Amino acid sequence: MTDGKYINEDLKRERENPPFDLEALAVAIYGKEMYPKLNKLQRLFAKNENLDLRHTWSCDNKTRYILACRIAEELAHLARKHNLLDDPELVGALQVMVGEEMFLLLHLTMFMCTLEAMCNEEQAKHWMPLARDFRILGTYAQTELSHGSNVSRLETEAVFDEETDEFVLNTPSLTARKWWVGGLAKSCTHCILMARLKIKGKDWGVHPFILQVRDLNDHKSLPGVTLLHIGQKIGYQGVDNGSLHLKNVRIPRKNLLMRFCEVDRDGTYRTTRSRKLLYSTLTFTRKQIIRSAGAHLSRSIVVAIRYSAVRRQFASPGDVDGAEQQVLNYSTTQRTLLPLLGMSIAFIQTGQWTDELYQAFKAEADRDVFDKLEEVHLVTSCLKAYMTLAAAEGIEQCRRACGGHGYLQASGVSLHLVSYLPQVTYEGDFVILSLQAGRLLLKVVGNRMAGNIPSGALTSSVRHLYTFDFDSVSEVAVVTKEDLLSFNWMIKAFEKRACVLVYMTAQRFSSLGGPSSASAFEAIKVDLTKMTVAHAQLLVVRNCLSSLEQLQREGQQPVQRVLECLFRSLALAWLDDHLAEFLTAKAADVESHTLIKETLADACAEARKTAVLVADSFGHSDNFLNSALGRYDGDVYRALFDSTKLDSLNQQDVSESYKLYIQYILHPERKTARPKL
Amino acid sequence: MTDGKYINEDLKRERENPPFDLEALAVAIYGKEMYPKLNKLQRLFAKNENLDLRHTWSCDNKTRYILACRIAEELAHLARKHNLLDDPELVGALQVMVGEEMFLLLHLTMFMCTLEAMCNEEQAKHWMPLARDFRILGTYAQTELSHGSNVSRLETEAVFDEETDEFVLNTPSLTARKWWVGGLAKSCTHCILMARLKIKGKDWGVHPFILQVRDLNDHKSLPGVTLLHIGQKIGYQGVDNGSLHLKNVRIPRKNLLMRFCEVDRDGTYRTTRSRKLLYSTLTFTRKQIIRSAGAHLSRSIVVAIRYSAVRRQFASPGDVDGAEQQVLNYSTTQRTLLPLLGMSIAFIQTGQWTDELYQAFKAEADRDVFDKLEEVHLVTSCLKAYMTLAAAEGIEQCRRACGGHGYLQASGVSLHLVSYLPQVTYEGDFVILSLQAGRLLLKVVGNRMAGNIPSGALTSSVRHLYTFDFDSVSEVAVVTKEDLLSFNWMIKAFEKRACVLVYMTAQRFSSLGGPSSASAFEAIKVDLTKMTVAHAQLLVVRNCLSSLEQLQREGQQPVQRVLECLFRSLALAWLDDHLAEFLTAKAADVESHTLIKETLADACAEARKTAVLVADSFGHSDNFLNSALGRYDGDVYRALFDSTKLDSLNQQDVSESYKLYIQYILHPERKTARPKL
Repeated sequence: MTDGKYINEDLKRERENPPFDLEALAVAIYGKEMYPKLNKLQRLFAKNENLDLRHTWSCDNKTRYILACRIAEELAHLARKHNLLDDPELVGALQVMVGEEMFLLLHLTMFMCTLEAMCNEEQAKHWMPLARDFRILGTYAQTELSHGSNVSRLETEAVFDEETDEFVLNTPSLTARKWWVGGLAKSCTHCILMARLKIKGKDWGVHPFILQVRDLNDHKSLPGVTLLHIGQKIGYQGVDNGSLHLKNVRIPRKNLLMRFCEVDRDGTYRTTRSRKLLYSTLTFTRKQIIRSAGAHLSRSIVVAIRYSAVRRQFASPGDVDGAEQQVLNYSTTQRTLLPLLGMSIAFIQTGQWTDELYQAFKAEADRDVFDKLEEVHLVTSCLKAYMTLAAAEGIEQCRRACGGHGYLQASGVSLHLVSYLPQVTYEGDFVILSLQAGRLLLKVVGNRMAGNIPSGALTSSVRHLYTFDFDSVSEVAVVTKEDLLSFNWMIKAFEKRACVLVYMTAQRFSSLGGPSSASAFEAIKVDLTKMTVAHAQLLVVRNCLSSLEQLQREGQQPVQRVLECLFRSLALAWLDDHLAEFLTAKAADVESHTLIKETLADACAEARKTAVLVADSFGHSDNFLNSALGRYDGDVYRALFDSTKLDSLNQQDVSESYKLYIQYILHPERKTARPKL
Repeated sequence: MTDGKYINEDLKRERENPPFDLEALAVAIYGKEMYPKLNKLQRLFAKNENLDLRHTWSCDNKTRYILACRIAEELAHLARKHNLLDDPELVGALQVMVGEEMFLLLHLTMFMCTLEAMCNEEQAKHWMPLARDFRILGTYAQTELSHGSNVSRLETEAVFDEETDEFVLNTPSLTARKWWVGGLAKSCTHCILMARLKIKGKDWGVHPFILQVRDLNDHKSLPGVTLLHIGQKIGYQGVDNGSLHLKNVRIPRKNLLMRFCEVDRDGTYRTTRSRKLLYSTLTFTRKQIIRSAGAHLSRSIVVAIRYSAVRRQFASPGDVDGAEQQVLNYSTTQRTLLPLLGMSIAFIQTGQWTDELYQAFKAEADRDVFDKLEEVHLVTSCLKAYMTLAAAEGIEQCRRACGGHGYLQASGVSLHLVSYLPQVTYEGDFVILSLQAGRLLLKVVGNRMAGNIPSGALTSSVRHLYTFDFDSVSEVAVVTKEDLLSFNWMIKAFEKRACVLVYMTAQRFSSLGGPSSASAFEAIKVDLTKMTVAHAQLLVVRNCLSSLEQLQREGQQPVQRVLECLFRSLALAWLDDHLAEFLTAKAADVESHTLIKETLADACAEARKTAVLVADSFGHSDNFLNSALGRYDGDVYRALFDSTKLDSLNQQDVSESYKLYIQYILHPERKTARPKL
């Protein structure tokens, strides 16, 4: 991982005598199919000095954007050379693994996927090869200055002009300007434009168009197109989020993406395929976000664990020689970091499971079969909402666990945090997606009450809601230590908690007037968010169990033991954090609180023993971690010191600030008259 | 607040017919003594164009530091002109209200307060006038590269040289370099240096020295002194955090600050006063942080509330005309924002209470009476730990409540967040202070068990631990709606929860071996953090009640009503968030969950009605809010659009990124050979 000879003594000790094979753990984390592919990418990126991200520790935002374009160029180069785009799985992986955000990633995901989903055959034949070979660079323009989640209110319009066989594009007001479009300010040449289709005065609603915004030869913005950078953000500075103003821009009729509908030469509008397919793009993007949540979190947790092994603070009271102890030995640190380590792995695996669910849906949808639509919509809404929030909060926990240095950009974790934060918001924020997921969960209750059990329901993610035994609510479960160590008990407990939340909410909803009452829905919204969290955690815990069962079947006991301990610390931490819900559901008894905390502390202490080895197993390169604190060699203080050499303020002893301002604080008499600033 | 004529229609409506007097509420929030002073500052700062902070939306970090020095100069100018330093209360207030971080604030707080606390009379006479008139600019240098919280392990040393009557200062290793010292890189001329005092080979431990680091005339760093900027952080860019390396730097003996001890000409070390007084600086800084937590949070909540009143999204299902509704009408938004609005006010008031406690302690301590030391140490540790965490999390909630735009620097809230985050860590992070607070709470149990009730205990903040009725633990309180509406019930519930946590932990601690066992202490650390949160929330809820009682006595019913509703939403939100602890303590029954959630939703809905008016009452100027979204006039989209004009990427249509990199992605053939980057 590093070429130097130095390895910090504590890390060396942590790495002695691993009780499991590191590569076997990596295979278990990433899956047998993915591991070799990922490993190939990891090795390709690790030694590439064009992918060294340390400039992000010190450069200004504009330079960071420009250097992100350098990385984009390198990535395009690698993609061409190694045919990276041939494998769609690799595309998702490289998006995380390159470690920096840039317009090219939006081209590879949002733009190309929308083309794939929305073009008819002829259009696909024209546009896809151009996009795959980077001969056009695209992005996806939907959000407007005052219109985000409520797509139906978008203002941008495409009016069909029969005379010229063109659409005339306009953003008719200040608030209609496209806003936030990644890569649109200065980088992309094309975009998918979401706009209201209007024909002969009739509004057909929002449709996707393809629009060229910059000249392919000299990159100048085209007539009628005004592109602006929307300004600085607290992170994500590699991407130039753009604003787009359109004034009577004309595009040919065939630039309407026509997989679902067609507009004829005479302006006749015709639907050709089910609009349900439109969900597949939406779901695709959410699925990608879900897939990457664990990887993002793992980047920060690896830093926090390695640094907590290197960093020493306070002697333990009983220690005779008085040496300060590793921060990783603190029970408080363990309570924070070990569940997050388990969460990283559980999220990566849950991401893979979601991917499989999505692929199965997609395969059917391409044949216009939509049986799995509701299930995939529920799972992706619910997991996108919860996992991004949990990952963002987890990254912040990791940052704080690094103490004061966690605030430095050179720590890496602070940069991970501010770059990850938008994922919590975009593509449906926690509340909006919770409401969608919650509605679907309520619908299940309706189905069951009506005696309507759809086919597949009993093997779906909501099977517990169909099989839930209402009589069990009156029995309080008295929790034993054995229960807490059993994953089967844990799943029953998480199911019971999830069921009771859903059924109580359904009851309240119905008593307040049900679906026909706006105020009833308003009154249960907060409950819907709690149902979403409970459902998401249940899905993750179920994935933990299947992963352990598989390792058991494969005779991978050493790996199974280490994962079991991590997953237990995660499940117990959730049980502890949300105990009131488990108590209300009578899935646990009030007296169990202490037992839960003790069992959790034991699981964390056990998991701590191999924490550095597990962190190593992710295979994250120093390039990817981009952290002075999380380096493989643990030479953290030297790295922090070296990082100061890059800083612009260190280029001179006396700063301009003195000449311009500070001297007049110290010597006000030097300023004969205060000039107007 | 703004000079323009435009006021957003929704805000106009929210401001119609206020059911209370806005100034009366402001007086209630800030206190009768503070309000006129604050109001004076608010007016002084609001119209000052040198205190316009909008450059922080777009400038690079180095420029931001330099412009923070411009603000510092303006502040020094105002301080001289209006004698702002004469009133110590104003100093604390202006620190928050100037809205940007800068070295001068460290001069005014850490540096001057340490001088005041640590100088003997002669030293004070020399240094204080220089500092007060900004003829020297100082900071406080304690933390080292690998030494933060554990002060006793600092490596920097001051060796007494009898021959020359000087101390010889050295940072003997890489990790001994002072690190993180605010303002030390490029701004300050002096610092308080914490270093090990060594005389004739004997190590007397860490002591404060005053050290000049830069020339007063030309600002060059002095011989033997190496100053570096430690690098970029994700926020707080107005401050140049520095590193200091010392090589055989000599300072006269009298530069040891000698209030507590003296070193004679012949090297004799003598303690002159109780070292307990040293706690007063530590406590002072924590108290200042506590005092400002509510104000910081209020800055973000004002933005979030105003923007949620202006921003519209989705029509409500029952609405006939289909207009999108104000986001503030969502029950989910209300559940997030209204408790935080209550929290801002409760934190401001709790800060004032802490201040009074501190002043009483300080007055006694100056006479070498330390009866209140333990109480003040407990209260400040506990509240610093909890309130900074809660405020930081609250600010992030406000940021998320602003949707996607909350991520823009122009939103203000994103900048508030990243600038506030270090407060959670510095001056003792959550865990370290929790352990200190927790230990003191356990000590109370020991006192009571030993039948030892110290004087003042029954009026102190831990009185509930002395009077707690153990028999009550076996009775489960069945909660009624009336209970939840009563603040007296609420305080009993918070007391019971806090007591049970402490007594259960004490029991566990003792069963594991008690104070003599290191592993026993390790085992209860997590519990100590939970005890700290419970104790802190109890203190805040008690402050809410006294505030309401005072308004009652004063016949201020309209203001009382609005605060009661906000405080209720806060207390109920805490009850909801931590319900498991209340259930375990039998302070509530398992069946009460739904009732709590409903009562909370009602309180939030009621508080929503006057939310914009309450937000206005804080008196925050647009300068201070520094937010396109939180402007008084609600002209948010125009402001966002205008903000793009400042951005450096918008100065040209085709960016350098195209010439340097993007063109080679589009046209790889233009690059005949890939040059090494």
